[in-house]
Amino acid sequence: MTRQQLVEEIRKKQSYLCVGLDTDITKIPKHLLAAADPVFEFNRMIIDATKDYCVSYKINTAFYEALGRRGWDSMEKTVDYIGKSHFTIADAKRGDIGNTSTQYAKAFFETLNFDAITVAPYMGSDSVKPFLEYKHKWTILLGLTSNPGAQDFELQPAGNGLLYEKVLTTAAQWGTPENLMYVVGATQADSFTAIRSLTPDHFYLVPGVGAQGGSLKEISAKAMNKDVGLLVNASRAVIFAGNGEDFAEKAAEAAKTYAQEMAGYLK
Amino acid sequence: MTRQQLVEEIRKKQSYLCVGLDTDITKIPKHLLAAADPVFEFNRMIIDATKDYCVSYKINTAFYEALGRRGWDSMEKTVDYIGKSHFTIADAKRGDIGNTSTQYAKAFFETLNFDAITVAPYMGSDSVKPFLEYKHKWTILLGLTSNPGAQDFELQPAGNGLLYEKVLTTAAQWGTPENLMYVVGATQADSFTAIRSLTPDHFYLVPGVGAQGGSLKEISAKAMNKDVGLLVNASRAVIFAGNGEDFAEKAAEAAKTYAQEMAGYLK
Repeated sequence: MTRQQLVEEIRKKQSYLCVGLDTDITKIPKHLLAAADPVFEFNRMIIDATKDYCVSYKINTAFYEALGRRGWDSMEKTVDYIGKSHFTIADAKRGDIGNTSTQYAKAFFETLNFDAITVAPYMGSDSVKPFLEYKHKWTILLGLTSNPGAQDFELQPAGNGLLYEKVLTTAAQWGTPENLMYVVGATQADSFTAIRSLTPDHFYLVPGVGAQGGSLKEISAKAMNKDVGLLVNASRAVIFAGNGEDFAEKAAEAAKTYAQEMAGYLK
Repeated sequence: MTRQQLVEEIRKKQSYLCVGLDTDITKIPKHLLAAADPVFEFNRMIIDATKDYCVSYKINTAFYEALGRRGWDSMEKTVDYIGKSHFTIADAKRGDIGNTSTQYAKAFFETLNFDAITVAPYMGSDSVKPFLEYKHKWTILLGLTSNPGAQDFELQPAGNGLLYEKVLTTAAQWGTPENLMYVVGATQADSFTAIRSLTPDHFYLVPGVGAQGGSLKEISAKAMNKDVGLLVNASRAVIFAGNGEDFAEKAAEAAKTYAQEMAGYLK
């Protein structure tokens, strides 16, 4: 999906919501466990229920890998089921030396047909560039993350600024706003204005609203740009909004509530 | 495998070689492609041929993920085949917020029964600690890597030293030499003495000899400690030493050559 197509989808749906499929098999409704593939069955119902309220789905690979090859199978089926109607993100946080990153790019852009993958910056340029070489695919680089550990390295002084600022500005030379986004955690609202001034045109994938406590209102006020420039992710707050027979309806309600709030900020 | 067991294995075999199973299906001998699972068949023959010369095997997850669920299957079979005779490393470079890292730890320490996993430090303490919580399992944190991109962030000033130095000393407070190792690239020999002084007791996983050009002699001279403290990895230089019917014999010769050189440094 190109940047223009993504912006058009956001304008059309009046939503910049990404639903995170952190499908923990120990948390899905018990009645689904009888299905042949409970994780896929859960995802399928969540997707059917929420697809009108979001423009993107993010699959957190850890929850699938925890189940081994069976989980990898559920992931493949899920990304195929979503198809091309939504922007699909493999939240995989990969990154290795060049020839290995090339294999990860192949895994997520070819074997699995994701639009985007999250990538860790620590190993530098040759660990990131193989992902950027794919046409119409996206690299979403970790910038400033939503977790407490962001304090340990990301928010430490590095050169003339903080490490995450160095990551943002350095990587901006490797990719363009057409193929590179950044992860910026919703819990880091104090830094949003500074981040937007460093990278005015890039999209941000913003996790951390809902369970982690970030404010959608504050993020939207501080970080929206002329093309919106935001994909705000909610995972647990949507997919585990309910845990009974009506879990999909509860998820739809939660996604709709986010989308309605977003529509207000897009006016 | 405990630290004491690992050190005993190294002393017994007079080798600190780790063979890297970067099994690229496009590079394995053509006659294996007729097998039901060519990647596993290749690995099985490499393991049989090299097991006496190494104490560890490292599986580079990227090459398996590139094949999708079929590759995940080959990885499971390979780690099961190695069993408990060797120290098994998932070279996966994972790392995410705490609740997600917990899932990755489950994937590689429970679903797949690896002894160790490589972990990326960028997201800080809560992204690393879930791996450290497993008894008799190992976290191998990226310190200073062997690739050109190490220059972009790892070798940049951060506080009173360089970023990778901050990573080494910060993480040394999270784990102990009994459950935490570091990745230190063989191409970074200029820094080895400094690194050893910062972290005198930890083991290092050292990739980058062979195809990437690092010197086994220099690493061994500068970074060995009283318990050896080194696992030196060779991947392509061993597993792709030959590519005909005799590929396993060629791999054995390459592994034996490394082991003989190591035995000299252990005297």
